[in-house]
Amino acid sequence: MKRADCQALDRADPLGPMRQRFVLPEGMIYLDGNSLGILPRHVGARIAEVIGKEWGQDLITSWNVHGWFDLPRKVGDRIAKLIGAPPGSVIAGDTISVNLFKLLGAAVKLRPGRKVILSDSGNFPSDLYVAQGLRDLLNVGHELRVVEPDEVLDAIDERVAVVMLTEVDYRTARLHDMKAVTEVAHKAGALTIWDLAHSAGAMPVDLAAADADLALGCTYKYLNGGPGAPGFLYVRPDLQEKIVPPLAGWWGHAAPFAFDLDYRPAPGIVRNQCGTQPILSLAALDAALDPWDGIDMQAVRKKSLALCRLFADLAVERCGRHGVKLMGPGDWRERGSHVSLGCPEGYAVMQALIASKVVGDFRAPDVIRFGFTPLYTSFTDVWDAVDRLADILDQHLWDRPEFLDRKAVT
Amino acid sequence: MKRADCQALDRADPLGPMRQRFVLPEGMIYLDGNSLGILPRHVGARIAEVIGKEWGQDLITSWNVHGWFDLPRKVGDRIAKLIGAPPGSVIAGDTISVNLFKLLGAAVKLRPGRKVILSDSGNFPSDLYVAQGLRDLLNVGHELRVVEPDEVLDAIDERVAVVMLTEVDYRTARLHDMKAVTEVAHKAGALTIWDLAHSAGAMPVDLAAADADLALGCTYKYLNGGPGAPGFLYVRPDLQEKIVPPLAGWWGHAAPFAFDLDYRPAPGIVRNQCGTQPILSLAALDAALDPWDGIDMQAVRKKSLALCRLFADLAVERCGRHGVKLMGPGDWRERGSHVSLGCPEGYAVMQALIASKVVGDFRAPDVIRFGFTPLYTSFTDVWDAVDRLADILDQHLWDRPEFLDRKAVT
Repeated sequence: MKRADCQALDRADPLGPMRQRFVLPEGMIYLDGNSLGILPRHVGARIAEVIGKEWGQDLITSWNVHGWFDLPRKVGDRIAKLIGAPPGSVIAGDTISVNLFKLLGAAVKLRPGRKVILSDSGNFPSDLYVAQGLRDLLNVGHELRVVEPDEVLDAIDERVAVVMLTEVDYRTARLHDMKAVTEVAHKAGALTIWDLAHSAGAMPVDLAAADADLALGCTYKYLNGGPGAPGFLYVRPDLQEKIVPPLAGWWGHAAPFAFDLDYRPAPGIVRNQCGTQPILSLAALDAALDPWDGIDMQAVRKKSLALCRLFADLAVERCGRHGVKLMGPGDWRERGSHVSLGCPEGYAVMQALIASKVVGDFRAPDVIRFGFTPLYTSFTDVWDAVDRLADILDQHLWDRPEFLDRKAVT
Repeated sequence: MKRADCQALDRADPLGPMRQRFVLPEGMIYLDGNSLGILPRHVGARIAEVIGKEWGQDLITSWNVHGWFDLPRKVGDRIAKLIGAPPGSVIAGDTISVNLFKLLGAAVKLRPGRKVILSDSGNFPSDLYVAQGLRDLLNVGHELRVVEPDEVLDAIDERVAVVMLTEVDYRTARLHDMKAVTEVAHKAGALTIWDLAHSAGAMPVDLAAADADLALGCTYKYLNGGPGAPGFLYVRPDLQEKIVPPLAGWWGHAAPFAFDLDYRPAPGIVRNQCGTQPILSLAALDAALDPWDGIDMQAVRKKSLALCRLFADLAVERCGRHGVKLMGPGDWRERGSHVSLGCPEGYAVMQALIASKVVGDFRAPDVIRFGFTPLYTSFTDVWDAVDRLADILDQHLWDRPEFLDRKAVT
C-alpha cells in the first residue's frame, strides 16, 4: 500500500464528493469527529439567518412562524431515519445525560419489582453517574451492577429491571450486538436502554429491527451538530403512553399554553420534553443534518470499516515496534467507527500529533483515539496521519516539555 | 400627559443610549421582552466567530483554547452580579425546568423528615409540573401544596421541606417579598427555592441579602440571551458541599476526564452540572450579557416602574371604558416589570395589536400582557402602544376572523 493507492481509493469513493459540504481547516487532518464533528459548510449562513431574521426581526412570532416550537420533533424525525426508528419516536433536546435520566427514571418505574440496573465497564462514565444519581435519589435499594462487556449476556436475569449499555465503547470501539442483547433482556423481562453516542451517523442502527425499548444519543459527534449540540431520545411506539416522565415540564404537557396547574403528559414522544430548548443550537443541528439526506448508511459502514482497517493496519505495520497496538476486537464486524491505539507516552504523542495538525484525542492512561467519519475523511487522510505518527515515534518528536505537560483535554 | 412629554422623558433618560445596542425592528414596538428579549446588536458577529473560527477552524481545541468548557461558570459569574450572588455561586446551563428539578431534588433530601413542597398558584405551571414529576418519581409521600400567593406566609410550618416560588408572577407581576418569605421559611426550618425568570435583569435581586438558599432563572427574557437560551441556578455557598446532585453527570464530576466509573461530585457550584452544554446558545448568552456591564440595577428599577405606571395609567385612562383593567397589585413596590391587563376579547385584541406592530402577548382567559425592558423600551414606545390599543378598541378593529382564530401562541 502506498499513498498513491489511497488517492486511487479516494477517486473511486462514492461518498468522496460529500467532503465538499464540510469546512476542512487548511492543512489539518481531523480524526476527532467522534468527539466534535466538523462544521458543515452551510451552518454558518443558516444560523446568521436564525439570529438576524428569526430572532432579530420576527422575534416571538418565530416560535410558530419559523417552527421553533416544533424543532425538537422535526429534528427528531430526521435523526430517526438514521437509526431505524419510525416517525414520531425520536425527539431532540436537552443533553445526553439528562435524556438518559429521563429514560432510566421512567424505565425503573415500569419494572417496579426489580432492583438491578445492569451496565458494563465499557459504558461512558457519565451514563454510570446518571444511574448512580438516580439510584441515590430514589433510595429504595436499586443496585447499579457494572460487569465487563463480555459478561453482559450472562448477567441478565429476572432481577434486572434495565440493561443500560452504550452500543459502541468510547475507548475500544467494541460493538454490542443490540439485537442479541435485547432479545435476552426481553426473555428475562428486562427493558433495554441503548446509548447511541458513537453509533448514530457512524454506522447503520436499526432500533426497530432490534426491538430496542429505549435509546438516546448525542449529535455533536458523527452528526456534526456543533459543540454541545442537543441530544435525542427514542421510545418504542408501544411504550410511549406508558412512560411517566420523571422530568415533567411544560414542553411535555398535553396543553402547554393552557397553563393548568396540574401536569398532564402529552401523547406520544413529546411528553419526554421538559423545558424550553436552546433554539440556536437546535437550528444548527437541524442544518447539520442536511448532508445526511439520501445517504445510504450501508455505504457509510463500508467506508468506515475500510478507513478503520487501513489506519489500524498501517499504524501497526509502521509503529508496532514502538509498542503501538490495536485496542478492541480484532473482528471488524464487532467494532464501531473509531480506532484506539495503545501507545506508550500516548499523551505526549497525541500532543505532538496535534501540533503537526493531525487531530485525534487521548484517553487515560495511554490510549490515543482516532475517529473515522466517512462523510469527510479520505483514505489519503489516513495515510498521511499514520505517516506523521510514524515520524513522531521514529524521531522521538513527542519528548518535549510542552507535549508532556498534562492538562485537561476533551 | 402628551406624546411630547414622553419624548422629553426619553431625552432625559440615563438608560436611553442603551437602546442603540439592540436591534429594534423597523416600525415595531416590542413589549414582549418578558417572553423573548430583543437581539443585542453584536451577538450575530460573535456567533459567526464561534461558528467560523472556533468550531470551524479550531475545532476540539476550542474546549480549552476558547474557554467553552468554562463558559457555564463564566456566564454564571456574570449573571451573579445582576442577582446579588457572590462569584462561584451561579452556573449557567440546561433549561430552567431541569435546573429546578436539580435543586428541588437536592433540597428535599436535605429535609428528609418533611414531606411538603409549598408553592403558590401564581407560580409558572412548569415549576409545579417539575415538583409533581419529582413527587411521583420519589413516591414516598411528598405533597405539593399549592396555596394562593397571599397565603404563602401562613402556610409555612414545620412540615414544609421547601418553599418554592417564582418571585414575580408571570401573569399579574405580583412580587413576593423574598427576604420576608425566606426569613419565615428559615424560622420554620424550611429551605427556599426562588425562580427568577421574571426578575433577573428586570429589577434588583439580592439573593445574598435575602439569605435565599437556592435559586434559578432563565436568560431569554430580560437578559436577552436568545430563544431558549440556557438557564442558570444558584446555590448559597454554605450549602454547596451539602448538595447531592440528583442529575449526576460527567460535567459535575470532580475529575471529568479521569473517566472513573464512580461518581464523585466536584466541589462547589460545578457539581450541579450534568451533561455537555450547547455552546452556540451559551456563547450567544455570554455575548448578550455585555450590555449589562456597569448597569445600575436601581436605575433599571426606577425606569421599569416609570414605564409600567405610565402604560397602566394611560391604558386605563384611554381604554377603561372598554373594560380594560389593571391586573395585580396596585402598589407598584409590589410589582415586577410587566403589566397585564384584563381585556374582554383579549386574544383577538392582542392579535390586532401584533398586526399593527405592537407586540405583547396573551395569557388565557383574557389577559393581555406587556413587558417593559428598560434597556431598550422608551417612554414614547409606551405612548404609541397605548395609542394603538385605544384605536383598536375604539374602532373595534379586533373583530375580524383572522384575529379571532385561536391557535397556540407563546
